[in-house]
Amino acid sequence: MKKLIIASTSTLHGGNYLEYLAPALKEHFKGCSSLLFIPYARPGGISHDDYTKRVAGFFDGLGISVKGVHEFEDPAEAVADAEALFTGGGNTFLLVSQLYKTGVMAAIENAVKAGTPYLGSSAGSNICGLTMQTTNDMPIIYPPSFKTLGLVPFNLNPHYMDPQPGSTHMGETRETRIKEFHVFNTQPVLGLREGSWLDVKGNTVLLKGDLSARLFRQGKEPEELEAGSDLSWLR
Amino acid sequence: MKKLIIASTSTLHGGNYLEYLAPALKEHFKGCSSLLFIPYARPGGISHDDYTKRVAGFFDGLGISVKGVHEFEDPAEAVADAEALFTGGGNTFLLVSQLYKTGVMAAIENAVKAGTPYLGSSAGSNICGLTMQTTNDMPIIYPPSFKTLGLVPFNLNPHYMDPQPGSTHMGETRETRIKEFHVFNTQPVLGLREGSWLDVKGNTVLLKGDLSARLFRQGKEPEELEAGSDLSWLR
Repeated sequence: MKKLIIASTSTLHGGNYLEYLAPALKEHFKGCSSLLFIPYARPGGISHDDYTKRVAGFFDGLGISVKGVHEFEDPAEAVADAEALFTGGGNTFLLVSQLYKTGVMAAIENAVKAGTPYLGSSAGSNICGLTMQTTNDMPIIYPPSFKTLGLVPFNLNPHYMDPQPGSTHMGETRETRIKEFHVFNTQPVLGLREGSWLDVKGNTVLLKGDLSARLFRQGKEPEELEAGSDLSWLR
Repeated sequence: MKKLIIASTSTLHGGNYLEYLAPALKEHFKGCSSLLFIPYARPGGISHDDYTKRVAGFFDGLGISVKGVHEFEDPAEAVADAEALFTGGGNTFLLVSQLYKTGVMAAIENAVKAGTPYLGSSAGSNICGLTMQTTNDMPIIYPPSFKTLGLVPFNLNPHYMDPQPGSTHMGETRETRIKEFHVFNTQPVLGLREGSWLDVKGNTVLLKGDLSARLFRQGKEPEELEAGSDLSWLR
């Protein structure tokens, strides 16, 4: 059975890395003593090693040892052999490019479908959707495709931001960008605010955290979905 | 001689479409009685016809008639025949996809190098740089390449935004995104704030408007360039 936590962000303002998710992660990774981290998204250009160390620091507190997928000669095989998987945030274009180049994209899909528990944050959540086309990131690298894992039957927009009241900035709001996406694409887009995550077990998708999420569907007005909602119907 | 106005935004907060640029555009398009508009970026999904009407409304006041490139059977030929060119803002991924599909990308490059005066705003400015990789837009369509016109020897980031003081949002700032770009790419990136534009005449590039611009170079600290600066040295 698929088991995923798909989080909008790794860190809440004023909090420590993954801290707000610790109770959910204890449950999610129960019985796991090791985790394979996928550091390819490299936030701020951090190295694979340094990023993996940051993650290991957190999981140490849960009694889970961490290795980075970049430490293995055959990264796809490392994914297949992993007890648990975590893809961290950063740049989604870079992440997706590396996932295709290394064969890790297909390996994650197979492992998660076979029951390996998965955690994604930010870019690592984006790739759980049908495509990466609702990322907020800059296209710093040209990936071979925008298609992603499709572990949920819709797209995600992590770090979802409401229009800023009183803003004088004339760049598009997040809502306008997603509306432009729906001129050409039919899949629903779920805007996950920071502090929200999806808990996926098999075909059941629950919205967790204290905040509502914003759902965008082609040809419909956006809707607010309350915290705790069952989103298993969404496709 | 190349003649371009490369504007961060079409519209200032509280102003009308292109209004703040009107004095510069009168000079820039002096002697032109017609202009070819490239509406491919479709902001908010607006149709080519409606977008062209909005633009015609403004240029009417300057005594310049406007046609949309989509009205022509051979759009590349229409660009070659045009007296003046304007590429409007919207989604850069969509714009670049259409420019390649129609052959208009190469046609603009040739026309501008042969002296046809060009105006770009937002996405229409992005494409004047070496690549579209420092756009802020969502990847709603997969373009055949990120390479763009290279009419200036650097990249642009229109609608440049400074980090918001007191923001609790954990998504990357614009500066962090550009730093991630420079992990993999060497060309300078010029962050143009709303209200700034570049005036390009041949190899001379001047920063116009009342604001400074922010320059990002690989391996260097970001720099502020004063309004009025000559940026002809930048590459």
